[in-house]
Amino acid sequence: MKSIKVGIAGLGTVGSGTVNVLKRNAGEIARRVGQPIEIAHIGARRDNPACDITGIRVSRDVFDVANDPDVDILVELIGGTDVARELVLTAIGNGKHIVTANKALIAEHGNEIFLAAQEHGVDVAFEAAVAGGIPILKALGEGLAANHINWVAGIINGTGNYILTEMEQGARGFDEVLAEAQALGYAEADPTFDVEGVDAAHKLTILASIAFGIPLQFSKVYMEGISRITIEDVNSAAQFGYRIKHLGIAKDTGNGIELRVHPTLIPQEIMLAAVNGVMNAVMIDGDAVGPTLYYGAGAGAEPTASAVVADIIELGRELTVDHHERVPYLGFHTDQMSDEPVLTIEDISCGYYLRLHVQDKAGVLADVTRILSDNRISIEAMVQKEVDEGLVPIVILTHRVREGDMNEALKRIAALDTVDNDIMRIRVETLDA
Amino acid sequence: MKSIKVGIAGLGTVGSGTVNVLKRNAGEIARRVGQPIEIAHIGARRDNPACDITGIRVSRDVFDVANDPDVDILVELIGGTDVARELVLTAIGNGKHIVTANKALIAEHGNEIFLAAQEHGVDVAFEAAVAGGIPILKALGEGLAANHINWVAGIINGTGNYILTEMEQGARGFDEVLAEAQALGYAEADPTFDVEGVDAAHKLTILASIAFGIPLQFSKVYMEGISRITIEDVNSAAQFGYRIKHLGIAKDTGNGIELRVHPTLIPQEIMLAAVNGVMNAVMIDGDAVGPTLYYGAGAGAEPTASAVVADIIELGRELTVDHHERVPYLGFHTDQMSDEPVLTIEDISCGYYLRLHVQDKAGVLADVTRILSDNRISIEAMVQKEVDEGLVPIVILTHRVREGDMNEALKRIAALDTVDNDIMRIRVETLDA
Repeated sequence: MKSIKVGIAGLGTVGSGTVNVLKRNAGEIARRVGQPIEIAHIGARRDNPACDITGIRVSRDVFDVANDPDVDILVELIGGTDVARELVLTAIGNGKHIVTANKALIAEHGNEIFLAAQEHGVDVAFEAAVAGGIPILKALGEGLAANHINWVAGIINGTGNYILTEMEQGARGFDEVLAEAQALGYAEADPTFDVEGVDAAHKLTILASIAFGIPLQFSKVYMEGISRITIEDVNSAAQFGYRIKHLGIAKDTGNGIELRVHPTLIPQEIMLAAVNGVMNAVMIDGDAVGPTLYYGAGAGAEPTASAVVADIIELGRELTVDHHERVPYLGFHTDQMSDEPVLTIEDISCGYYLRLHVQDKAGVLADVTRILSDNRISIEAMVQKEVDEGLVPIVILTHRVREGDMNEALKRIAALDTVDNDIMRIRVETLDA
Repeated sequence: MKSIKVGIAGLGTVGSGTVNVLKRNAGEIARRVGQPIEIAHIGARRDNPACDITGIRVSRDVFDVANDPDVDILVELIGGTDVARELVLTAIGNGKHIVTANKALIAEHGNEIFLAAQEHGVDVAFEAAVAGGIPILKALGEGLAANHINWVAGIINGTGNYILTEMEQGARGFDEVLAEAQALGYAEADPTFDVEGVDAAHKLTILASIAFGIPLQFSKVYMEGISRITIEDVNSAAQFGYRIKHLGIAKDTGNGIELRVHPTLIPQEIMLAAVNGVMNAVMIDGDAVGPTLYYGAGAGAEPTASAVVADIIELGRELTVDHHERVPYLGFHTDQMSDEPVLTIEDISCGYYLRLHVQDKAGVLADVTRILSDNRISIEAMVQKEVDEGLVPIVILTHRVREGDMNEALKRIAALDTVDNDIMRIRVETLDA
């Protein structure tokens, strides 16, 4: 079977994450694409202990990758705008498709790069450039393509959101939190790009183009950072029912497009206000769909690699199949379906909420808890309600347990003379990732 | 210029929404596709006053649309499984691409339909079948394709979520809220499909296939509805720090797939717990990206039409261009970019939060509010902080105003002898759709 050959330029955080995801999920990815994705060539000034590149050709000059005739797709992960621009244009000139996570490159040189790609009949994919692992460009450019987009508003810089969240939750000042963020590696030694809004403005430039069909116009974005926000402002905003978030906003007013990045008060009760720490979220309001929201990790090695590899898969699918069924109907190719068994409900496991009604007698509670314990069920919390007469309601929250064990326990509890046999049981999921 | 010819079978709520969105946004849609989308033929037993179909060919037999040689894409919006299956197979046999919003059809007959489509070299798109306007199938099958999916958990039935939300917020019982939902048209006269989890199970079947690459297996989904939940359960859950939501959960446990639809306690503080009323949201946990969330309207004429038309656009793009640049780099085709102006920051309008420090003297506040009023700025809320000595901080929240007017006012306020000229100003956005 032929494979799609990928060349990766840059082996920093995102580069090593991309190598790790491509290797770990190689089997599933091949089932989705229709053929394997092979890392044919890596260009990096030095190796990175975060990933194992044994057996892969490595060059110290990234241009060797762009000029490698074996490479189908060049993945640009070196960052910056000058060398990256030259590298990408070289690869395009050599007929290679491009995947990049570089927001500055696309926001500032995208118009030129797309023109070159069009001339050479190649594709350029850059989902990872905005909001890391959230597939927001695909949602905007494809999923919501039926809509006239009214506005896009997003928390699209994780560092800034981390600082604002810490200021609010710890009642601490900007300078103190920034220093801590730098110590933790969440903020750069020179934090200007994050803190003064440049990074968010690059991303907003790209979002606005896809939303409204306007050219990339980074120079027209109004930028204001978070460095002037005080803890007093955070508290006063809360008093009015608001939280302060650093938003990128692109809005079609009907007589022009607003493009602006600045601290913004938003109502406490909307979902965007619940986005904390380094997480990102983007709200999109379309004329048909109404408001929608997309939430996830906006940075980090593997979340960003998730988007980089999704773009590689998209290009790989285009190189693999005829234009019909480019994306297989169910994501995986029909002859690559898995026969993994579907579990019966007895074999699932989760926590349980139980509500039972018992007689107000000594020993009843002991009987119930002993049956639970006999069936390997431990109790997380229990509340006995007060009633004047009749049966006493008891509500129990259990730790995670196999449903078959719970069913066995409930059968025995219901059989007790002292317990009403109509027991309410609701499953509990904490949805921890 | 050639156009893509669409035939629409079914002119109910979603059918009329689809006609309206295709007509209203025809210009933008043509810019995204590369050529116009034309409604060539509608099949419906009767007209629908919710949309204007003047000039469009109409047949009373939907099979006339499936057999119309002019039609490139058949849009199946009649619902149900028997006639819909026959209609779709007929259209596929005639070489037409298919778009459908029919979750029952795909969940129960998808395997057969995809096989037929593959034989005839046509595409089948069904984004609208799950979670209405949220582009969740595209996110799962394309945007997160790099990931091994650990689990998917979603609020995917708006009627059920409306009932649970109303029970919680109004402290009312299930029967009372269901009757109200039926009166409002949110629930069917026979509410079984929504209330007993069948609708959610159809959608979960589709999500699980795309997540894990397993065949569609509706019959293996464990189903439990919300009809036994009492207000007592809702309150007890809250006491433990949880909310009760009706979730569809698909999980890869490592030794089998869990497929289950049931009421579930989830922690109050996670974003999924904040999804109220008829809104839908789906959480997806991937091994690379971590947890992500997608939120929006799960039903209704235009939100569902948003997804139907997105699928039409996707097929239209495939019919229009070579396989490279199938989706234009910026969503719109390069020669179709708009030159809509980008506004300067003076021309935007929003609310403002102002923090100023003033001398504790009679008349200062009057001066400030007069200047605001002179510049057409009205005050929504104002707080004067207490201080023992020195300048007094005042925090003001204004209604929406043009930024140029605000700048003018701030310049005059800063020039007052009684006001410190370092005024803090943060923009306010309520992000109402």
